[in-house]
Amino acid sequence: MSSYPSSAQRVEEWRHIRVTRDDGVVTVTLDRPEKLNALTFGAYADLRDLLAELTRERSARALVLAGEGRGFCSGGDVDEIIGATLAMDTAAILEFNRMTGQVVRALRECPFPVVAALHGVAAGAGAVLALAADFRVADPTARFAFLFTRVGLSGGDMGAAYLLPRVVGLGHATRLLMLGDAVRAPEAERIGLISELTEEGQADARAAELARRLADGPALALAQTKALLTAELDMPLAASVELDANTQALLMHGEDYAEFHAAFTEKRPPKWRGR
Amino acid sequence: MSSYPSSAQRVEEWRHIRVTRDDGVVTVTLDRPEKLNALTFGAYADLRDLLAELTRERSARALVLAGEGRGFCSGGDVDEIIGATLAMDTAAILEFNRMTGQVVRALRECPFPVVAALHGVAAGAGAVLALAADFRVADPTARFAFLFTRVGLSGGDMGAAYLLPRVVGLGHATRLLMLGDAVRAPEAERIGLISELTEEGQADARAAELARRLADGPALALAQTKALLTAELDMPLAASVELDANTQALLMHGEDYAEFHAAFTEKRPPKWRGR
Amino acid sequence: MSSYPSSAQRVEEWRHIRVTRDDGVVTVTLDRPEKLNALTFGAYADLRDLLAELTRERSARALVLAGEGRGFCSGGDVDEIIGATLAMDTAAILEFNRMTGQVVRALRECPFPVVAALHGVAAGAGAVLALAADFRVADPTARFAFLFTRVGLSGGDMGAAYLLPRVVGLGHATRLLMLGDAVRAPEAERIGLISELTEEGQADARAAELARRLADGPALALAQTKALLTAELDMPLAASVELDANTQALLMHGEDYAEFHAAFTEKRPPKWRGR
Repeated sequence: MSSYPSSAQRVEEWRHIRVTRDDGVVTVTLDRPEKLNALTFGAYADLRDLLAELTRERSARALVLAGEGRGFCSGGDVDEIIGATLAMDTAAILEFNRMTGQVVRALRECPFPVVAALHGVAAGAGAVLALAADFRVADPTARFAFLFTRVGLSGGDMGAAYLLPRVVGLGHATRLLMLGDAVRAPEAERIGLISELTEEGQADARAAELARRLADGPALALAQTKALLTAELDMPLAASVELDANTQALLMHGEDYAEFHAAFTEKRPPKWRGR
Repeated sequence: MSSYPSSAQRVEEWRHIRVTRDDGVVTVTLDRPEKLNALTFGAYADLRDLLAELTRERSARALVLAGEGRGFCSGGDVDEIIGATLAMDTAAILEFNRMTGQVVRALRECPFPVVAALHGVAAGAGAVLALAADFRVADPTARFAFLFTRVGLSGGDMGAAYLLPRVVGLGHATRLLMLGDAVRAPEAERIGLISELTEEGQADARAAELARRLADGPALALAQTKALLTAELDMPLAASVELDANTQALLMHGEDYAEFHAAFTEKRPPKWRGR
Repeated sequence: MSSYPSSAQRVEEWRHIRVTRDDGVVTVTLDRPEKLNALTFGAYADLRDLLAELTRERSARALVLAGEGRGFCSGGDVDEIIGATLAMDTAAILEFNRMTGQVVRALRECPFPVVAALHGVAAGAGAVLALAADFRVADPTARFAFLFTRVGLSGGDMGAAYLLPRVVGLGHATRLLMLGDAVRAPEAERIGLISELTEEGQADARAAELARRLADGPALALAQTKALLTAELDMPLAASVELDANTQALLMHGEDYAEFHAAFTEKRPPKWRGR
């Protein structure tokens, strides 16, 4: 829980995404299966605000991002989003694109690991949401398609031109973002786009298991691991080594490190407190 | 075509490389097959100036870089280049090395995708030219060898120590640049150095198909995708997300995005204008 | 040998590591096999000071880092290090973490290639030492485990959150650093964490062969290749190309480049001088 609560109110009901909570694991489900979970303005706004709320409250220790029905997410809704953006003025269209980018930044910068549970299609903005997660747990039906150039837009949407080369290398990233072709699960695993390949139909279950394991782990240590991975992509070696030394020194004065040593000495599993 | 023509004249005849044009696809062929297309001072200078001309004119929508004969390119000519550089003074030798680097920068910064068509050897500077392309279409005879240390020079030539770790990771890049050993097509594909592996003898044909597909696509969207991939390798996450938002907002006011929506609504393929 | 000797004395006896020298190849062996070569304060300090001495003296042309007994290195000693750090004050604990990071920086910044010879476990700080090497020569028994979160600490230890994404990509790096699970040799090879996979029991022999080959090569060219690979991870493209041009121009006035040309002309192998 937050040490510094403000006057901000908790949202009672997320209307554009489904949110469930279970002892530190928050599961966010894109839930428009009749539209392959196409993203709407409301869904982006809810994701942005939910991640901000979870970061503020500090109640989440892991988050699962999943899709209901036949696939994970088909991307921005052609009717609602593409149609609407065509009528927008400059300020409005920039505001929309900043909002979608803000969701990706929030996924990368929130202080808990994010596990994407993937089956069927992850296309367009759906592929980028998956890309921004810390873990991509996918079954063999999963396929990624960075479709942006297919609709006349840049493949660099919501940070994809930053993130994808750092996940799969510049060669594969160029191919995927320029062509927008589908990448099926075997290739995605081969090039490093999948963290864990499951049996068919098991992505949600395995993602939930992984999130449970993470939520039961040393939360502060995991949050700092994520923060360092995110920050050090943009930092030089010497500064990274110094940041690591400071972070580790801090955590060596934390409760969980002492608990590990006590548990090891007493030959029992540690009870993590996240401090 | 350029909106801002200067007084610069188009080169009538490229004497050190073969250049053909076909409706937006420019094909550049290294054409000294009796020397395995070893690069000469003239070939570097022609590549530098051709890329500048194409960037200025804006007539190219895709470029193929290929080699005539038994292989793609054996690198700098031992007699002409190594022999000559030994006699150069400091200013001259720096000018030469800046020129070769300028070719790589031009390949990365030109506003159209570059497809390298690879068969047989891509060695030394030839391997770096291939590395600087956006796509590497290779047949099973293709092999890469970053030979620089074999001649007593640094493996970091023409940007190779920047580019290769970003394509294949630091571990493989260190091995390839330090040792200069040949990497054959199966390994090159496995580590992400090949974009598409073709049947034997089909690299030129498949590269031409890919370039045609790219040239027939939404040229401005593809140019921006390339620009963002290139720029965001050197940018932090937050700035990249902001750049993406601005780029996408710009393209959402472009003709091709509206054309996509009209075509989708009318259930027909889009006619891209590159605007 | 150094052109600029200071008053610093050569260490006569390294008490916490085993050091042997053979014509430019320095072999450092972690030698507490009864503890799976668990690292002690003394071992870290010796590694730090040995690398500084070798850099100062310029007598090493390649370094092998190996482990005696059943595995390479099980990481920081639970009794000696974890127990002791729990009792340290802020300044002491930061000094310890900076020292371990200094070993990694020294491995990346020393002017000769480092070859890790890996069999059995490379865990915790042992995995990071291997990661910081230029080459990882491993046999099929080798396994990596970045165990830090298992003891309540950050996975970003000693530069791991900087280095690992640049070696295996952000997706695999996140999984390895967050979970601390063991990565066995086949997977390690697949994701780019192993430079050369040997027959069982052959890692030390093959690492020695590779170090010999490197030490017999053009030492200045190899040192510059390493320096550029290290520096250009933190540099933009244009500056990297300029650095390459300057480095190459420098080496083109060196003895080894002239020697290559003479040897090529005389159809004999070059005799490298490292100048």
